[in-house]
Parts: sequence; C-alpha cells; structure tokens
Amino acid sequence: MKALVYHGPGQKAWEEVPNPTIQAPTDVIIQVDTTTICGSDLHILKGDVPAVTPGRILGHEAVGTITEVGDAVTTLAVGDRVIVSCIKSCGKCSFCKKGIYSHCLGDEGASGMGWVFGHLIDGTQAEYVRVPYAENSVYKVPAGVPDEHAVMLSDILPTGFEIGVLYGQVKPGDVVAVIGAGPVGSAAIMTAKLQGAARVIAIDLDDNRRAQAHKIGATHDVNPAAPDWKEQVLALTDGLGVDVAIEAVGIPATFDTCVQIVRPGGNIANVGVHGAPVELPIQNLWIHNINISMGLVNTNTLAMLLNLVTEKKLPVDQLVTHRFTLDQMMDAYDTFSRAAETKAIKVAITRD
Amino acid sequence: MKALVYHGPGQKAWEEVPNPTIQAPTDVIIQVDTTTICGSDLHILKGDVPAVTPGRILGHEAVGTITEVGDAVTTLAVGDRVIVSCIKSCGKCSFCKKGIYSHCLGDEGASGMGWVFGHLIDGTQAEYVRVPYAENSVYKVPAGVPDEHAVMLSDILPTGFEIGVLYGQVKPGDVVAVIGAGPVGSAAIMTAKLQGAARVIAIDLDDNRRAQAHKIGATHDVNPAAPDWKEQVLALTDGLGVDVAIEAVGIPATFDTCVQIVRPGGNIANVGVHGAPVELPIQNLWIHNINISMGLVNTNTLAMLLNLVTEKKLPVDQLVTHRFTLDQMMDAYDTFSRAAETKAIKVAITRD
Amino acid sequence: MKALVYHGPGQKAWEEVPNPTIQAPTDVIIQVDTTTICGSDLHILKGDVPAVTPGRILGHEAVGTITEVGDAVTTLAVGDRVIVSCIKSCGKCSFCKKGIYSHCLGDEGASGMGWVFGHLIDGTQAEYVRVPYAENSVYKVPAGVPDEHAVMLSDILPTGFEIGVLYGQVKPGDVVAVIGAGPVGSAAIMTAKLQGAARVIAIDLDDNRRAQAHKIGATHDVNPAAPDWKEQVLALTDGLGVDVAIEAVGIPATFDTCVQIVRPGGNIANVGVHGAPVELPIQNLWIHNINISMGLVNTNTLAMLLNLVTEKKLPVDQLVTHRFTLDQMMDAYDTFSRAAETKAIKVAITRD
Amino acid sequence: MKALVYHGPGQKAWEEVPNPTIQAPTDVIIQVDTTTICGSDLHILKGDVPAVTPGRILGHEAVGTITEVGDAVTTLAVGDRVIVSCIKSCGKCSFCKKGIYSHCLGDEGASGMGWVFGHLIDGTQAEYVRVPYAENSVYKVPAGVPDEHAVMLSDILPTGFEIGVLYGQVKPGDVVAVIGAGPVGSAAIMTAKLQGAARVIAIDLDDNRRAQAHKIGATHDVNPAAPDWKEQVLALTDGLGVDVAIEAVGIPATFDTCVQIVRPGGNIANVGVHGAPVELPIQNLWIHNINISMGLVNTNTLAMLLNLVTEKKLPVDQLVTHRFTLDQMMDAYDTFSRAAETKAIKVAITRD
Repeated sequence: MKALVYHGPGQKAWEEVPNPTIQAPTDVIIQVDTTTICGSDLHILKGDVPAVTPGRILGHEAVGTITEVGDAVTTLAVGDRVIVSCIKSCGKCSFCKKGIYSHCLGDEGASGMGWVFGHLIDGTQAEYVRVPYAENSVYKVPAGVPDEHAVMLSDILPTGFEIGVLYGQVKPGDVVAVIGAGPVGSAAIMTAKLQGAARVIAIDLDDNRRAQAHKIGATHDVNPAAPDWKEQVLALTDGLGVDVAIEAVGIPATFDTCVQIVRPGGNIANVGVHGAPVELPIQNLWIHNINISMGLVNTNTLAMLLNLVTEKKLPVDQLVTHRFTLDQMMDAYDTFSRAAETKAIKVAITRD
Repeated sequence: MKALVYHGPGQKAWEEVPNPTIQAPTDVIIQVDTTTICGSDLHILKGDVPAVTPGRILGHEAVGTITEVGDAVTTLAVGDRVIVSCIKSCGKCSFCKKGIYSHCLGDEGASGMGWVFGHLIDGTQAEYVRVPYAENSVYKVPAGVPDEHAVMLSDILPTGFEIGVLYGQVKPGDVVAVIGAGPVGSAAIMTAKLQGAARVIAIDLDDNRRAQAHKIGATHDVNPAAPDWKEQVLALTDGLGVDVAIEAVGIPATFDTCVQIVRPGGNIANVGVHGAPVELPIQNLWIHNINISMGLVNTNTLAMLLNLVTEKKLPVDQLVTHRFTLDQMMDAYDTFSRAAETKAIKVAITRD
Repeated sequence: MKALVYHGPGQKAWEEVPNPTIQAPTDVIIQVDTTTICGSDLHILKGDVPAVTPGRILGHEAVGTITEVGDAVTTLAVGDRVIVSCIKSCGKCSFCKKGIYSHCLGDEGASGMGWVFGHLIDGTQAEYVRVPYAENSVYKVPAGVPDEHAVMLSDILPTGFEIGVLYGQVKPGDVVAVIGAGPVGSAAIMTAKLQGAARVIAIDLDDNRRAQAHKIGATHDVNPAAPDWKEQVLALTDGLGVDVAIEAVGIPATFDTCVQIVRPGGNIANVGVHGAPVELPIQNLWIHNINISMGLVNTNTLAMLLNLVTEKKLPVDQLVTHRFTLDQMMDAYDTFSRAAETKAIKVAITRD
Repeated sequence: MKALVYHGPGQKAWEEVPNPTIQAPTDVIIQVDTTTICGSDLHILKGDVPAVTPGRILGHEAVGTITEVGDAVTTLAVGDRVIVSCIKSCGKCSFCKKGIYSHCLGDEGASGMGWVFGHLIDGTQAEYVRVPYAENSVYKVPAGVPDEHAVMLSDILPTGFEIGVLYGQVKPGDVVAVIGAGPVGSAAIMTAKLQGAARVIAIDLDDNRRAQAHKIGATHDVNPAAPDWKEQVLALTDGLGVDVAIEAVGIPATFDTCVQIVRPGGNIANVGVHGAPVELPIQNLWIHNINISMGLVNTNTLAMLLNLVTEKKLPVDQLVTHRFTLDQMMDAYDTFSRAAETKAIKVAITRD
C-alpha cells in the first residue's frame, strides 16, 4: 500500500510500504477513507518529537472501513464504517477505567501513553491502518454523517471540548475567551455552548480566523495586536475578567494572555502543545484562586460528540477548507503547512 | 486598649490605641480572648505586603466575646463567644453567593479582597477588634471547645482543607504528599482523611516537623534532602507518582518538588504564599493531564470543620506549641519568628 | 393601595389595603410594575395550602421599582428597577450559605421556608410589596430587558432550570423528556440546552402546548394519549430510555410516565407540585440505578439566567400569552384559570 | 467438581457437576478458594428471582486462583490470586465506559445486566467458576490480604460504599444514618468515613447488630422500636434531620424511616433489595429538596477499596462471624439463613 512515511526531520515521502496485519486478537485493520493533518504532524516533521523514529507512518485521524478483525473482536465486523480515535484505549487498565485514555497503560505502542498512531506505531495517513484494542478505540459512524464531519471527531472536537471546555470547567452563563482560533481553538469555540457559555470571545491575530470564529459560535472577537486588547476583553465581562481562558496556541505569549484576563476564581485551560517553559507569576496569582489545567485528549466524549454531530447540533461543516485525495498527500501537507497564507483550517484527504 | 501596631518594615509595638467602635449596622465589636500569629504577619513585618500601611493593627485570627452589636445584627448577641474568620464575607455579592468569600466584593476594607483584618483594616492582635459583616464573618463556638482549638479555625484549618485538600481534589484511596509540615501543611495533613486519603506523605527538611506530622495523620514521611527522596516518594505510590501534591511552603524549589512527583492525571494544590515567579515546564507537563490550583482561603468550610472539631474528629490539640498572654505579644512574635529553633508550630496568645 | 386579597377557599378580591412599610433595616419597599399568576396561586385559592390564611395578599412574582430602603441596605437605592425572587434569602444561615435558599432559616415569614411571598407574608399581586432581606432577594434589571421577560425570572425560569435541568443532572448529549409543557415545563425545555441536551422531547396531551414547545427548544414531541406513546419515546433514544425525565405536572400519572421511560442510570427530576402520594415500584427500580430528585426552587441561578436573558440566549419572549393591567387582576385570574381553553401560558399584569 | 445447585424454590444441593470450560478468548477459569453467601442467595431460594432457573450454580462472591486463561487475556496468568467481582464488565460498552458496570451491555449472561454469576450464568459457590470478560471482572489480591478480607470486596464493601455512601452524596461533616446493620449496612457504616462523615448512626432492631456497628465505625445507635426513636435521631442532628439516610434492609417500613428523618436538602440512598412497592409521600417531600437514589453495585470502586483494605484502613476483619469448608456448604446456608439466631453477619466458606 501507499503511506506517508517520516524519514527524519524535514523528510517525508508518500511511498509504497507493506500492508498492516492483525497482530493481537483485539486488533482490526481499517481501510482509510478519509484522513487529515494535525499541527502535531508538522511538529514531528520539524524533529520536535524525538520519540517518532524514521520509517514511521504519520497521522492519527481517520474515518475508514474495517477490512479484517481479530479473533476476540465481537462488536465490530468487516465492512463497518468507523472513526479511529487518535488515542488508543485498552479498556482495562486503571487509567482507562477512570476515562483517562490519554495515559492508557495497555502496552501497545507504549504503556502510559494513549497517543500512539503516527507517534509510536504506524498511523492513519496511509491506505490501511492497524488499530489495536479496536473495540475501545474506534466508533461506528451512523448513516448520514459524512466522512468530512466524522473525521473531526478523531482528535480536534474531543480535544477542544475535553481539554478546553470541560477541563476549563465552563458553566452556564460563563464568559469564555479562546486564544487561538485554529482547528482546536475552533473546536473549543463550537463546543463551549454545550456547557452553556453566555459569551465566547475569539482572540486571534489573524483577521480571517476571527471572522471565521463567528460562524461557529464566537459571540465576540478581539485582535490581540490592538493596544487596548485587554480593555476590550475586560469590557466584555463585568470588568473582573473572563471566567475561563482557553489557550489554544502553545507559546508563552498566549499563555500569558490567559493569565492577564482570567478573573479571580477563574480557570485557565491550556490546550496548546508547548515547546518551552512558561513563567508563572504565582506571586500574584496565588491569591486569585485560579485553576490551571492542561492535557492530552482522552476522547472519552467522542461518542457523545458524535451523537451531537449526527443531530446536526455542532457546525462541524465549517472546519474543512481544502480537499485532496490520498495520492495528493504531499500537496495537502504543503497547503496545511502554509495555513496563514492558504487560510487552511482543516484539510480533508480522501480515498477517491 | 493595647494592640500590636505595624510601624513600617521591621517596626512594631504593643501600644495603646483607641478602642474600635461600630461603624455600620452590620458590625460587631469583639473582645479578643485568644489570638495567634501567622506566617503572613512575618511577611508584612518584612515589608513584603505594601498594602499594609504604618499604623495598622496586625492579626487575622481570633476567638473572642462579643461586646457590642450593630442595629441590623439579629443572630448574634453581646456575650456570644465566637471565632473570627480571617476572611470577611458580605454574604450578598456574586462571589460570596458562590462561596468565594476570598474575593468578596463588599467594600469594607477593599472590594474584591476578603482578607482585610491586619491587612486593610485593623486586626485581631489587640484587646478588641471590630468585625464588619459580622453575621457572615464570625461563628459561634460550642461549649466544650477550648479557645486554643477554636482559633485554629480562623485560618489554618480551612486553608489546609480548602486550598490543599479540596482544591487538590483528594479522593478516597488517594496517595497525597504534603510539602512543608508547618501550620498550614499540618492542617492539610490532618484534613486529608476527610476525603478518604489512603496515604499521606509529609515531606519536610525538619526532623521535628516530620515526626510531628505522624501525630496528626501522616502515614509516611520523606526528607527532601535525601539523595533518593524522589524514589522514596514514588515507592509509596504505584511508581507513577502521587495523586495529589500539596505545596505548603511558597518557594520555587518546593513547587518544583510537586511537579516532579505528581502522577499523570494528578493535582498540584498550591497553598504556599509565594514571593517570586516559578518556571512551569509546560513543554513536559501539558501531556500529563495535570491540574494546578491555588488560592486564598474562603473559610466556607469553617462551620463544618468546627463541627468536626467539636466531635473531636480532628487532632487539633497538636498544633499549639507555645503559650503567651496578650501583654507578652512581643515575646510571642520572637518565639514564632524563630520557629526552626524554637520548634514552634502555632502560638496561643490569650487575654489572661 | 390596591391588592389581590385571599379571603378563604374560592374567595378573593382586588381591594384597598394599607401600604406596606419598612419593618427591618434590611427591608425594601417596591412599587410593582409587572406581576403574574402562578399555578400555585390557583392551588391556594382552592384551599389546598392551609398555611395561607384569610387576609393574605397573594403573588410571588414581580418586577418593580424600589421606593424605600432600610437603614442597613447599601447596595440598592430608591429608583432601582428589580426582579423580586419568589424565594427570600437571609444570606447568612447554613442553608443560604450552601445555596439552598428554599429552606432559608431566616425567621422572616417562617424559619426553614424560603417561599414566603403570597404564602406566609404579603405578596406581589399588589401596587406595593415589602421585601425582607432585600439585598439577597432582589436582582437589578439591566436596561433593555423588558418587564415581561424579567418577571419570568422570579420563579419559572429558575424553577425549570434548577429543579428540572440541574437536579436532573442533564449532561451534554442527553435525551431529555419534559412531561407537561406548561409554564415551568416550558422553562425546563428552554434551559435544557444550557447543559448540552441533544434532544428535548415535549410530552403533553395539549396539541397547542406541544406545538408551542418546539418554538422554545423542544426537538420532538409526543402525545401521551397515543396508544404507542412509550414506543415513540423509546424510539427517540437508543431504545433504553431517556437520560432525564422531568415531571412538570404534579399528578401520579405523569410521575409514572417518568418511571416508564427513564433508562438505567438515568434521572427523574420532579418539578410538579403534588397533592397526593405516588406509588414507587422500587421492587423494579432499585436495580435500575435511577435517581429521583425534587424540590422547591432556590433561585440561586437567577442572576446567571438574567445574564442569559440579557444576552438574548433564551426565548423568554415566547411565554406571555395574555396581558392585563393591575386593575384587571380579576380578569387575569379568570383567563389564567381557564388555561386549557384560553391557551394561556403566562399572563403579564402591569401597572399601566 | 462439586457445586451448590439450585433446583427450584426451596430446593438446593451440593452435588457433582461438570467443570467449567473457557468459552470465549476473554474468559478465565478460577479455582474458588473462598466464597460466601449473600442475602440475595436466600431470595433466590425462596423463588423470588424467577430469572434464576433450576440447575443454576449459585453465588456471586469469591476469591480464587486462576487455573486457565483465554487467548485474548494478556494481563492475567495462571496462578494469579484474584477477587471475582459480583458484576461482570465487558469494558467496552457505553455503560461500562461510564463506570455503570451494573448495566453492562456485553451479552454474556444478559445484555444490560452486570450481575450474572449465580443469576444468569453459573456462580461461585463451587470448586471452579468461569469468569467472562475476565480482565475487567477480576482483581489481583496483594500479598498479605487474607481471603476472608478480600472476599468482602466481591460485593458488600463496594455495595455499601457506592450505593450507600457515594450515591447518598455523603460529604465531610455530615450526619449519616444507616438503617439496617447487616452485611451491606455494615459496609456503608465502615466506608462513610471515607467521605468525612462526622456522625454515623446505626439504626437496627437487633441489639447485637447495634453493638457490632460501633466496632466498625458507628458513632451512635438507635433502636427503632423505642417510642421516641425519631426524637433520638433528630437529637443527634441540629434538629432538622440527617444529611443522608441509607436504607439497607429493603422493606417499606425502613424506607419510610428514611423519609421521616432526612433533612431538607438531604439524601435517601436506597441499598436494600425490595420485593414490594413503597408509597412515596411526594405531596410533602417535593418541597423538601430531597434526593432519592438506588441501584445495583457497579464495583467500579473495588480496586480503590482493595487498596484501603491492603493499607488496613477499613475494619474488614469484623465482618466474618462463622467459618466453613466448601463441603460444609449446606451447613453454611443453614447458619446464614438463621442470622437473627446465630448472630451471623458474613460466613466464610473455604477450600480447605
């Protein structure tokens, strides 16, 4: 089959590789019908994730069709159309039993790390992919939900909702700021209403992304380059700051934005993937009763979010900006990696 | 009356001052029967809290007897023996209604700051003290509870429980580490069992404090000066780290201790009062699903903790190490400020 | 002034009575600008609430203008336009501190009972009303929110949200059934989305009310007179039943409807005011992990809901069906008491 | 092998039956080292549980040694000493993912019913037992924990804690009443402290059981035959009633006891297995903001409780009153079925 293979920093190719095969009775093999590219794939290609070794097939998001099932699999069958969660879950370790699939102790790929696809085992940017612990790691797609919508559930919708909205403890009536209106920030924006947010403020330097944010649920936007950006944000609250600040970029400056605008008793939910430490002004913050959360997605809300997508309760059709076929994988990477220029949010890469 | 008056950094005196008087119909005046000294009083005397201006009477902990009540006070009477909470609460602002008394918007002392005694208004290290919003800021002491126990409820017991144990989300079966076994760390140690902690590890450089910790609920102790201190802590868990790390010192090194020993999915509860920023290695932590909380106590659990003290369910008799009378206030400060040497944990300063 | 006075079962009159006066320093007097009638007012008139004695002014919902304030009132002023909560809250008892204003121990009207207006003290169907514990019992109305919307916050919106949606533990993705689409059922229907309900099923015998329910947030409706009504409901779930069944009528038959359609692990939230016991088939239910909640509204979400009304996030303009002036009070009662015939949901009764 | 076989109402025998065999790759076979008898086994023998058909091996509690594992089992091995949970869990259905193992949709025994042993498939009162979905249904026993303690974790400790204490929402400082101090009531009594209960009142007609309750954590006891029993209970509260009433008998009279003593805003947690409906005086209760929970145990706290037992934090050694070997099974039933007379709480039935 063909797959997108990592060959070391800056090196990748869409090339012929062996087809995956069943390795444990709880595995399934999936034909990839639609996949996409994540910001973390670009990080890997920069060499920022040393755990990814040359020869690894990248990608952790996909919708596909089951072509083979292991002997212990009873609830999935060949032909089933499924979403592959970006996080594997063995379903039986102490972390999985608590819903913390992100730190699944099942030893597939690595014990203690739920994100394995395109990281510690071969991923989804390929014609076929092997999924371990399949009955806990894939989700059947109801008829009527297009691949382009379903594939948003592999990673970004659960990430924005779980790590942004739920870890941020958004409550009915809250004013929520989302810093960074890219793919995951967009997912946080569109799911904030599930917890009853009264106002959702999109904060982003990019005019296009701020405009886009209104289409998916933002009620206000602020350009952080404005000299009075902070006053603008506070004016959208009672003057004391936002209830929840969701960091969806991953750099010290945007983390600091959160620190500046959160109210006493409020929450900072870090969703961004960081490459450097941040300085926490705890000498000021300790007295402000702030809570700071962070984490890798668990995808334990994937099934619930899929129900809402099926009910057309989330504007998930607003996320895909560019479309490619699998054999245009290299072009898809090119477009996605120049997002500021191409205005890409998510790309859809399909079999046909 | 006599009171302990701040006269600028390093300057204090036990001196004659005017008696306090009722200023609003919701005030009461209290004769101080027992007070104590807090680490933050020492910070103020170093000049670290510029909001405290010369002439201010210090102290925010007391048990006393009501001598006068304002016209709107209906549930308290002259002669009532009460605990003064270190946090005033107006009972009617949006923060108070949510139980976040620490950021009470009532304008007594300062809007948005619940800690006013010995900070923004005159405090409790005096023969008498005026208490604003009295019906929400004092608590009647049941017969049989000695002053020495009751005064621990003004600040340290609620602080250890609310900001350490509750903000740290201690759950039944958890392994909890408390870094710093001073007054507030001790309060966290003794209240961790209220949430069902299975193991409580006291981490402190001081041999005396580690030994003391076992008397109040610690099940294990670790000396952080040991070369293998971290291995010792992890060996008391399943190898993955503690569920909750409670920081009760307030310096970067002890905050970093928490970062090193908390498990994926775990909590760091900062209780310490910090004077400098900390570096947060978020490039490593973001993927560990860690939660970091911090805050000024609300004292919204004071009444509940008082019930438990009345029921003799908390070893609150283990906290007072030295006793003084009010006119020995300067000696009490001397003893408390040399705690490492005098082995002081809390001092009791009484009227007679 | 004129007021609607209860004179024993079946007897009421719009008649001249003395104006109310300040009785405690925490009181305010309010000129009633808009009031309305509640189903419980009709219960009282039937003689079903013996605690209401002849001579009592009825009514517990109002928006009005403050005309006089007590000496201890600092956050309200003459001229303020406010909503009167149907529940008084002293703000200082153990129940109020936990947000359970419904059982406020403040002794105004009755200790342990938050609902006093038109019940244990004179109510809001009058030209003026005295409000005890005013700073915790009234809420300022932002400019731009019409009286007709604001008065829905006195009782029905908080009741539907708190006792239906919150006590029912509605979660994102849930299927919620509301049995009875009258005023309070409507409030539950429109607020269910604040907790992320995926489907809201209105169950009501009245064709008009089922149709109306769709305008305020119901996604489906079922007529319980249909022979296959239960199958219709289950078909809107995964076959196992609804996550939450909200009872908003108050008779055994509708409580039983909830029992029949709730899934294992689900919730029955009773909002209806009952006059007779129900038989609980606990021999079948115990193994179904069902939770049953019930209660008088606390109105501790009133301020939050008011924010959402101000943001136009709730279709509160769909509730008033008929309008009257205060001197048409008797006509208003006539219309509201024949709701099935007049299609009344809520009536607005205004000063001018 | 030998097993206790049900032969219809009133009929049972300890007789020779075929050994169990692996039927699915996720099964294990366990040699039963210690088992016990539950009140529900007696119900079955009375014919009260028609789903149990003649020929069924009874029993759902056991500690044993694995003798054979299915092909998909990777985390258990022959020779492992394990506790068998009374509830099977497939680990992959929507209920299991939420921790509601009681309604596991895995089709072993019956879809939607987690309790299968000695009910819908053969049980543990035998020399060997087959355990389906074994990796989610058994728990390894640490060295040092005797069988007699471990077997209390199959059912009664999780039942008392989950359905009594957790469903009852016991909070620090609460006054908790447990009605019925038999096996499951005892488990509730001893685990109430894990949620910080201040007082635990054992209510039981049996003098012996009330005395026994004090050994395992009860702070007070009340004989419900006393004319002033209710006054005695209320006197142990602030006069308004208990925070949580846990029903651990299963008859209308004891359910009504809960209704009489629960405070406004309090919880009734039904743990008892009922055979008849109860009358719920909802015409009085609706205004009291009462919550009523009920359910079959999930055993999702089994691992946590096992940790606490290993730490010797629960007085689990106080539960076994009589000991037998497997071939004395009929005697064990005789003793347990005459508990009032024999003073039996739990019997231990061991291989040797």
